[in-house]
Amino acid sequence: MDRTRYFITIEGGDGSGKTTQSLLLKEYLKIKGYRVLVTREPGGTDLAENIRNILLNPTSKLVPLAELFLYEAARVQHVKEIILPALKSGKIVICDRFTDATIAYQGYGRSLSLSFINKLNLEASFGLVPNLTIYLDIVPLKGLNKAKTICEKQYHWKDGDRFEKESVQFHKRVRRGYLNQAKKYSTRIKIIKTQNDLEKTQKLIRKVVDMEL
Amino acid sequence: MDRTRYFITIEGGDGSGKTTQSLLLKEYLKIKGYRVLVTREPGGTDLAENIRNILLNPTSKLVPLAELFLYEAARVQHVKEIILPALKSGKIVICDRFTDATIAYQGYGRSLSLSFINKLNLEASFGLVPNLTIYLDIVPLKGLNKAKTICEKQYHWKDGDRFEKESVQFHKRVRRGYLNQAKKYSTRIKIIKTQNDLEKTQKLIRKVVDMEL
Repeated sequence: MDRTRYFITIEGGDGSGKTTQSLLLKEYLKIKGYRVLVTREPGGTDLAENIRNILLNPTSKLVPLAELFLYEAARVQHVKEIILPALKSGKIVICDRFTDATIAYQGYGRSLSLSFINKLNLEASFGLVPNLTIYLDIVPLKGLNKAKTICEKQYHWKDGDRFEKESVQFHKRVRRGYLNQAKKYSTRIKIIKTQNDLEKTQKLIRKVVDMEL
Repeated sequence: MDRTRYFITIEGGDGSGKTTQSLLLKEYLKIKGYRVLVTREPGGTDLAENIRNILLNPTSKLVPLAELFLYEAARVQHVKEIILPALKSGKIVICDRFTDATIAYQGYGRSLSLSFINKLNLEASFGLVPNLTIYLDIVPLKGLNKAKTICEKQYHWKDGDRFEKESVQFHKRVRRGYLNQAKKYSTRIKIIKTQNDLEKTQKLIRKVVDMEL
């Protein structure tokens, strides 16, 4: 078993539980003896956290294409400063959202060209492709209610962040985007249905990781 | 003479006098009866000014590719929110730096792929090409000294902003980039040598504008 350069991304719509599940998975892998880094996108660096604020703040008025370029800028810095060095040092990296999110949100959600996004994704990630992607599937309406509650507590943004405020139609397109990606890259992307019980979802994730790692 | 949709960009290395010359040109065109908007890149919108700070602040540690994506994000918003509406309303728009700057600075200066930059420039400007570009040519060493003095007064950044702090070699590559662009697009881009006397430079600019407009 090669313990180095293993890159896991956790994907999913808003309120699918990515953040919690990433941390629970980290605990599991640490107990198994791995060195693990959990990080998130957009974020992970000063620049990217700065961009994250612009992207999520509901008062930002962003043209979709500007939104795309900001995600890619944050990604470049994140991959170069955080993800690649961690992988190189032999850690497992768990990243909360990555290139598939750009296809789902900016491609399917915002209707930007998928081939253009794929080109930018390739450049911005310096060709880095996840070894394993867990897609946490949840019905948009259910996920959004959860997400907005968390968001109001954390950021005091009523009705959620800039994405959570989008219509259910938007989130349905995002989900379709994720499911299409999972179909296209079925070896890499594993679909896990988010369960009502956190522990149950985590159990399913661990099973997949154990098989793949 | 069609007074609508005329888009002038003023390009040049640091310290070439773009900002002052843009404002002087605006006065001239206003006296001639035109409605004129002067704007600058990166900037012109809340988002773009925010990005401008990240790009110019000497403490920002940016990977070149992230820098490129940030410029393009700012451009999208600037073109969509400011430039296109102003042109549509019949104004002449004078923009301090635009797509040629990205080729010169990120392409020649940072050695990023020119064809990739051209692709992004095309998307980010929604296909908008300047009717006329004035390139203010100055020897890098001379320009840099001027630029740093202005910068220290305005921003209190000693030794200039993040670009002005770059080596003279960097600025020589930028200049070569501009000159190559001017050769390639000789109908659109006019080279004007920055004179020691502001008024003299402005006179040369007005002569070119009078012939082209």
